Amino acid sequence: MRLFLAALAILVFAPCVELQAAELRGTGDLGIVIERASGSLQVIDVTARRALGRVEGLGDLSHASAVFSPDQRYAFVFGRDGGLSKVDLLSRKLVKRVMQAGNSIGGAISDDGRLIAVSNYKPGGVRVFDSETLAPVADIPARYGDSGARSKTVGLVDAPGRRFIFTLYDAGEIWVADFSNGGGPAITKFAGIGDLPYDALITGDGRHYIAGLFGEDGLAHIDLWAAEPRVERILDGYGRGEEKLPVYKMPHLEGWARAGDRLMLPAVGRHEVLAVDADSFQEVGRIAVHGQPIFAVARPDGRQVWVNFAHPLNDTVQVIDVPSQEVVHSFKPGPAVLHLEFTPRGHEVWISVRDSDKVEVYDTRSFEKIAELPMAKPSGIFFTARAHRIGL
Amino acid sequence: MRLFLAALAILVFAPCVELQAAELRGTGDLGIVIERASGSLQVIDVTARRALGRVEGLGDLSHASAVFSPDQRYAFVFGRDGGLSKVDLLSRKLVKRVMQAGNSIGGAISDDGRLIAVSNYKPGGVRVFDSETLAPVADIPARYGDSGARSKTVGLVDAPGRRFIFTLYDAGEIWVADFSNGGGPAITKFAGIGDLPYDALITGDGRHYIAGLFGEDGLAHIDLWAAEPRVERILDGYGRGEEKLPVYKMPHLEGWARAGDRLMLPAVGRHEVLAVDADSFQEVGRIAVHGQPIFAVARPDGRQVWVNFAHPLNDTVQVIDVPSQEVVHSFKPGPAVLHLEFTPRGHEVWISVRDSDKVEVYDTRSFEKIAELPMAKPSGIFFTARAHRIGL
Repeated sequence: MRLFLAALAILVFAPCVELQAAELRGTGDLGIVIERASGSLQVIDVTARRALGRVEGLGDLSHASAVFSPDQRYAFVFGRDGGLSKVDLLSRKLVKRVMQAGNSIGGAISDDGRLIAVSNYKPGGVRVFDSETLAPVADIPARYGDSGARSKTVGLVDAPGRRFIFTLYDAGEIWVADFSNGGGPAITKFAGIGDLPYDALITGDGRHYIAGLFGEDGLAHIDLWAAEPRVERILDGYGRGEEKLPVYKMPHLEGWARAGDRLMLPAVGRHEVLAVDADSFQEVGRIAVHGQPIFAVARPDGRQVWVNFAHPLNDTVQVIDVPSQEVVHSFKPGPAVLHLEFTPRGHEVWISVRDSDKVEVYDTRSFEKIAELPMAKPSGIFFTARAHRIGL
Repeated sequence: MRLFLAALAILVFAPCVELQAAELRGTGDLGIVIERASGSLQVIDVTARRALGRVEGLGDLSHASAVFSPDQRYAFVFGRDGGLSKVDLLSRKLVKRVMQAGNSIGGAISDDGRLIAVSNYKPGGVRVFDSETLAPVADIPARYGDSGARSKTVGLVDAPGRRFIFTLYDAGEIWVADFSNGGGPAITKFAGIGDLPYDALITGDGRHYIAGLFGEDGLAHIDLWAAEPRVERILDGYGRGEEKLPVYKMPHLEGWARAGDRLMLPAVGRHEVLAVDADSFQEVGRIAVHGQPIFAVARPDGRQVWVNFAHPLNDTVQVIDVPSQEVVHSFKPGPAVLHLEFTPRGHEVWISVRDSDKVEVYDTRSFEKIAELPMAKPSGIFFTARAHRIGL
């Protein structure tokens, strides 16, 4: 009888315990912080400003980034080692992990949430997976030229209409992979975009795709709304000054942000942020800043742009007021400020300070620090609200 | 012994059963459909395109609208009868309901998610509640003039910085209530904005507040980024034609949408949608449409605007292509199309067709119908992704 009761208890309680392990809660205010050195991440509650728990075993998380499922329950984490990891933010468990390449850099999720695409260096190309199972859906080798060599791919983003757009670093090409037909992708190629494109962005409306060129002083732009989209050079002289400065670190283009009728973007090498007209793509101003900018991120309302900097000036953050184009606040969160993430409506910002092993939370109006969270060498911060934005 | 076991079972199982009643799931792809006639709503799974269950007892839901908590677990539903209802989308239970006024019209949630504001006709003013408990936080009677009479309030929206903005219908004033100090609100009043403001909107960046005027042929505009914000008249001649047409129903201003560098807005009384430059607020074009437009809603990427119409032409929806300013698609979902809601990245749109008792889901590129859900006299459709937008 006692044995029977014990067996019954296990039988009946088991699913209950499973349920209780994961907290019943909304997922709209969750996020993750990448802990690069330990191959782990922490799941965070953005409202409560606290960590909920750590997920480990994610491999090499250098330059790691993440996207989220439309229900905001799952994070898809793109590691440097080719690992693609699906993490359940509610149970805080690694659901699945596939080693899909030898070396990779970022990924994207389709507008319907069904497809995950990963940008690979080795072997060069893009691989696409089912977001439910991580089963392979498509392999797009980035072959170019007569030799059939494969190019590294960079600047992979989603675009409306079940499309992914990415850039071939070695080939100087931009490819659009259209999955709207449900089967294999229809691929459109744009060649001769310029030398050594190193990163790219898509504007928040999914209209403009812009690739930065390491080998040239300008950027490659495609208006995806055009009847016949083509590549045009914009901002010739982008970041160029009277004399070239050494570039300690290339800025991240994802950081580019639309603020009002302007795009604000980090100059390359120079201690400046450029203001660019969002319609004509002409430069309309330059703002002197503390160091070589890495991320220049607009607060979601576009009123402010927050900037961090390259080593050795990477202990500082500056805030630009967009209408006046003036730096209105400078402060030093600590050594190695790596990333910034705003709450979706912009009232707070989370900042990772790698070398003091913490993430700090600031009020974006008073500039007061309102919380600190201990984290192990934090780098990227990603909130689930990204699930509902184009190109993030 | 048997009794003891039974008692133990109840004691131990009770919380488990409670947990299992609510499904463990993400909340980023949930939504609600208002069933006006029955005072109920249905919770929907936007990804699966299915209804999860009904919540009843919400009172008079004429013109009802809703906002969502930042975690996207709770909906706050504003009824016409002054009822403010908090609904748990996971358990699909009415958590709390307060009758906070005799007659009301819409509400808003502060950018930090802590405050719920409701716009009241009787007694005229705005009342503010704690989003956690629905306990009263502030009462703002809309007194004006020498008599101290109270005005109906309309066009209540949230703005960045823990502010609410609303318009006094009888007084012709716009008030900004700033809760950033944590205590009672600091109120800024703008008087003499024009006759009979009937609704208002705030742009998605929280910068421009615009009130429609029933008594005049133009709109009142405040640039909230200005050093000293003031009211200016814009679009004099808004909707005016050679001769006045009878107005069957005033358009909803919330439907106004930024599409690229334009605002697209329903003309009043005329069978036209107006294209307005988003910087200068000058009219730049008119698009002839099927009837008197009610909602003109931009797909989230701004490439298309979908329009529904006033009785008796309210069986039809038209789609405007923004770059060409042409109607590219017309169709008839059925009698009494009341509302449209896009998925956050715009690949699908949900349409309520009141008099055929269903909600229809369409692919926004192929225009194909991909699902139908039975609903009792559906009106407003609201997805949880609104939690992360300014002014929605």
